[in-house]
Amino acid sequence: MREVYIIGAGMTQFGKHPAKSLRSLGLEACLNALRDASVKPKEIQAGYCGNALAPALQGETGVGQNVFWEVGISGIPIVNMENACASGSTALREGWMAVAGGFHDMVIIAGVEKTVMPKGTMLNVGGGELETQLGDVFPGYFSLIAQKHMEKYGTTREQLAKVSVKNHFNGTLNPYAQFQKLLTIEEVLNSPMIADPLTLYSCCPNSDGAAALILCSREKTRNINGRPVRIAASVLTTGTYDNQRDITGWEVEQRAAQTAYQMASLGPEDMDVVEVHDAFTISEIVHYEGLGLCPPGEGGRLIDEGATELSGRIPVNPSGGLLSKGHPVGASGVAQVVEIVWQLRGEAGKRQLTNPRIGLAQIMGGNKEGDTRACTVHILIKD
Amino acid sequence: MREVYIIGAGMTQFGKHPAKSLRSLGLEACLNALRDASVKPKEIQAGYCGNALAPALQGETGVGQNVFWEVGISGIPIVNMENACASGSTALREGWMAVAGGFHDMVIIAGVEKTVMPKGTMLNVGGGELETQLGDVFPGYFSLIAQKHMEKYGTTREQLAKVSVKNHFNGTLNPYAQFQKLLTIEEVLNSPMIADPLTLYSCCPNSDGAAALILCSREKTRNINGRPVRIAASVLTTGTYDNQRDITGWEVEQRAAQTAYQMASLGPEDMDVVEVHDAFTISEIVHYEGLGLCPPGEGGRLIDEGATELSGRIPVNPSGGLLSKGHPVGASGVAQVVEIVWQLRGEAGKRQLTNPRIGLAQIMGGNKEGDTRACTVHILIKD
Repeated sequence: MREVYIIGAGMTQFGKHPAKSLRSLGLEACLNALRDASVKPKEIQAGYCGNALAPALQGETGVGQNVFWEVGISGIPIVNMENACASGSTALREGWMAVAGGFHDMVIIAGVEKTVMPKGTMLNVGGGELETQLGDVFPGYFSLIAQKHMEKYGTTREQLAKVSVKNHFNGTLNPYAQFQKLLTIEEVLNSPMIADPLTLYSCCPNSDGAAALILCSREKTRNINGRPVRIAASVLTTGTYDNQRDITGWEVEQRAAQTAYQMASLGPEDMDVVEVHDAFTISEIVHYEGLGLCPPGEGGRLIDEGATELSGRIPVNPSGGLLSKGHPVGASGVAQVVEIVWQLRGEAGKRQLTNPRIGLAQIMGGNKEGDTRACTVHILIKD
Repeated sequence: MREVYIIGAGMTQFGKHPAKSLRSLGLEACLNALRDASVKPKEIQAGYCGNALAPALQGETGVGQNVFWEVGISGIPIVNMENACASGSTALREGWMAVAGGFHDMVIIAGVEKTVMPKGTMLNVGGGELETQLGDVFPGYFSLIAQKHMEKYGTTREQLAKVSVKNHFNGTLNPYAQFQKLLTIEEVLNSPMIADPLTLYSCCPNSDGAAALILCSREKTRNINGRPVRIAASVLTTGTYDNQRDITGWEVEQRAAQTAYQMASLGPEDMDVVEVHDAFTISEIVHYEGLGLCPPGEGGRLIDEGATELSGRIPVNPSGGLLSKGHPVGASGVAQVVEIVWQLRGEAGKRQLTNPRIGLAQIMGGNKEGDTRACTVHILIKD
């Protein structure tokens, strides 16, 4: 298996972009990544595009072709991937396999999505599932997790709120973030209740946006200027679909993380920066535990200690995370990796961490009858 | 790059299945393929699912998880692919890469689709494209190709009709085919005009159905009973999106075929059986030429000679093709390969060819402003 490097990273600002099409958002992100890598469109040998909802929301299929052709990338394999919130990171994993397996030397990954909807409209991701029709939508499902976590481990509403406060603070340091707004614990707690204990500011927004990466084989990387970051682990898996008994942790995430650590010959203690799928405040707490950043049940204590702040021992979601940077579904997994790349290269501006060398990005999605359709973990190293 | 074998193949009957869900169709095809391979669900290490239209038509995403979980395949990487009519064959290509690249030893490929719609409803595949809104839908686009082919090469309406007659005849020998109906040239010519010169029987139907394949590395294949068929070439590419001047041939197909022949160190003269994407009668004629089964412009003569009939020198679409077997979009590319596998193994029943050893499957789709979003060519060999 060949070593694969990320030699270019780019994204659009996340937020409301009613005047921009999927194509124009994708174009912007791809051009940024190509420019960053000093690579011409014609040098790209394959394109992988993650998008979760365009067919349902925009009536558009073939988003990868629509975007890449606009960039000037054509006549090569182009594949469209859908894996719910992990659509973009699944595209990354397939692109990594294409280079690692020796099929291509240089590929482009894009995540593109528009999910901002008219006020009052609900995003129905579960499709035809009976549970969804009965009201088991995401905030409801995550409120159950939060309540169980509070009951089992004594996690508090304040600890949950602190996740949102931290991520919104980080977001104010990230010009690409949807929200540029400082929040207090009280503001989070007192914002409108969505699904107890999750308030409005405990939930990520719907967003429009795109992100892109250029992957390259080790050999080709030598000939290209830039500051390559190595993909030390790329893991995709699904839940086991066997009625998980304990909803305070995701077996699928723990398994994905263990596989990734093994692949990279590293452990959670080696991580200098982490981006996780904080669709809700409780999610980030559970991800701390699932990734082994702290023992099970101690996620609340970890945020209390300030360990995951920018100045902490293991900063999580320096980009602002989904809560503040926003969540254009299929783009989020790619944007997490863009942030890790920027952090490892020392290009993260006001939120730059001190000399991080190893980073991890985790995302998962597509809840189906209590299990997860897809979870990815990527570990990146600045050699 | 490791050699990859197809050790299992299965499908559902294609047709109208109003009472069956995507999940139940996929389940049936996957169980057939697993049974054929004598492989248990737990032995599968990754799943690739091709589906083009479920989000738009059924409001369902994550079709791969919905199907594979039902089969008992979980806790592994599952990826959903969309590449228009080439969705299923794109899934095959990604699965092939996963095994050939050494990432997995045994993977399952599924193509699943339900496109049968209420009478009078039109399937709009182009999404938000202006051209589609203005009426440049598939029958219109292919009628232009037919007219130009007739003008440039003297291809006749009778030659076009013969494609439909041949494929409907083959379909009567295939219990999995949607139509079990013999047609005469006159019946094809006199059926209702859709887009001149394409009549109703010159166009493939909308269909429901699923197909599945089990892929395996050479090493693992030795331990499994069965009659493995080797994937000698797997090629995916897209159009060059540069305003093709001559619409009587697809540059993307010619390029995909050349790449595939090169990869397999074979030429068109070596093929014993071919399945092509006969969405319209004219398509099959153009594919003859694009794949090099005859020189450009001589596709009409090839059908006149009977060369592509079951008893001919190079039988094309022994399964009945899309015209007679049906066209459940994301499933069609997988089903073509199922047919080739059956033919090479001598299990094609009444339509069995005499000792074919090498077969080719071609499919393409997703017209966008006159160019093709995805085209795949697979070459299979019975060693």
